[in-house]
Amino acid sequence: MNLPVTLLQLIDELAKLPGIGKKTAKRLAFSLLMKSENDALALADSIINARKRITNCSRCFGISDQEVCQICTDTRRNQKVICVVEDPRNIFTIENSNIFDGVYHVLQGAISPLQGITPEKLRIAELEQRVCDFDIQEIIISTNPTLEGEATAHFLMDLLHTKVPLISRIARGMPSGGDLEFADTNTLARAFEGRTKF
Amino acid sequence: MNLPVTLLQLIDELAKLPGIGKKTAKRLAFSLLMKSENDALALADSIINARKRITNCSRCFGISDQEVCQICTDTRRNQKVICVVEDPRNIFTIENSNIFDGVYHVLQGAISPLQGITPEKLRIAELEQRVCDFDIQEIIISTNPTLEGEATAHFLMDLLHTKVPLISRIARGMPSGGDLEFADTNTLARAFEGRTKF
Repeated sequence: MNLPVTLLQLIDELAKLPGIGKKTAKRLAFSLLMKSENDALALADSIINARKRITNCSRCFGISDQEVCQICTDTRRNQKVICVVEDPRNIFTIENSNIFDGVYHVLQGAISPLQGITPEKLRIAELEQRVCDFDIQEIIISTNPTLEGEATAHFLMDLLHTKVPLISRIARGMPSGGDLEFADTNTLARAFEGRTKF
Repeated sequence: MNLPVTLLQLIDELAKLPGIGKKTAKRLAFSLLMKSENDALALADSIINARKRITNCSRCFGISDQEVCQICTDTRRNQKVICVVEDPRNIFTIENSNIFDGVYHVLQGAISPLQGITPEKLRIAELEQRVCDFDIQEIIISTNPTLEGEATAHFLMDLLHTKVPLISRIARGMPSGGDLEFADTNTLARAFEGRTKF
């Protein structure tokens, strides 16, 4: 194959993106060569800009282009309720659903001794500090319903239950539109445990 | 949604790539934020590099980072046989299959009066000149088997048949692994027309 080296490099870099295979990377690389130079460079610029300007919010550790993010400084939101998530992306998923008007705290992972992720490596100390500083009334633990997420939830419960009036955990059970036939035992067990009066 | 502006811009730019929807663009944007700064900037650099260095080969109009591409300067290849294609990408598809050892000529499109693409807008004059300059012995017309590709093939045949000893057109018929049941009438008609002695 006689592809120019610079094109091969571009294909390699694109193929490092998640879910982009060699073939798609090639298609994308060619499309970047085919479109106007301005359009192609606009993508390069936006990558550079995003990397330069976006950091973690110093309060919630979500993604922000300011020292403290828009959510943490929004006075219309309930600053006394913190939803704890593992990943900054979770914030945007929850925001998209318009079901929560409090603030967030990103742990930047979940406790996983096997992978060497101990509580000290997460933003748990910062959460503890924040609970004291801001007189938090409720913490909603929204870590994933996985082994690591559950372990993290229990750890937070043990750590914070004397410091916050209410600690809650998002409900686990059958997903909307799900089919009992395909539900795994854990999900089904959680759905039965968490049943509510009809 | 409280996404930082720079992140929104990055998502917009990524979503302009072919086959990348809003949701995938968001996933890619976040992954660019999550990976190390060097890795993210490497992609930006490779886009800039590719756009700066890669131009069209001045002889075949394929993609090249030199004035004349590697294929056009390769003396081991048969420089007397030209395979005519519509798009530079076609070169790499044919090269991948290792079935052709001549050189290429990229028309940069196909004749399409409806879209205002007349023969003058394609690299047809350059092909004509090349045929004279390099004493070409065969032209294999490999435009797509579409209405526009066929029209272009006929146009080239009319234009060049007095100047080149042999002009051929790639065979059309049933694709390997295809199923007669799903073949369209045109393909089937071509397959019967082009039948060979068994």
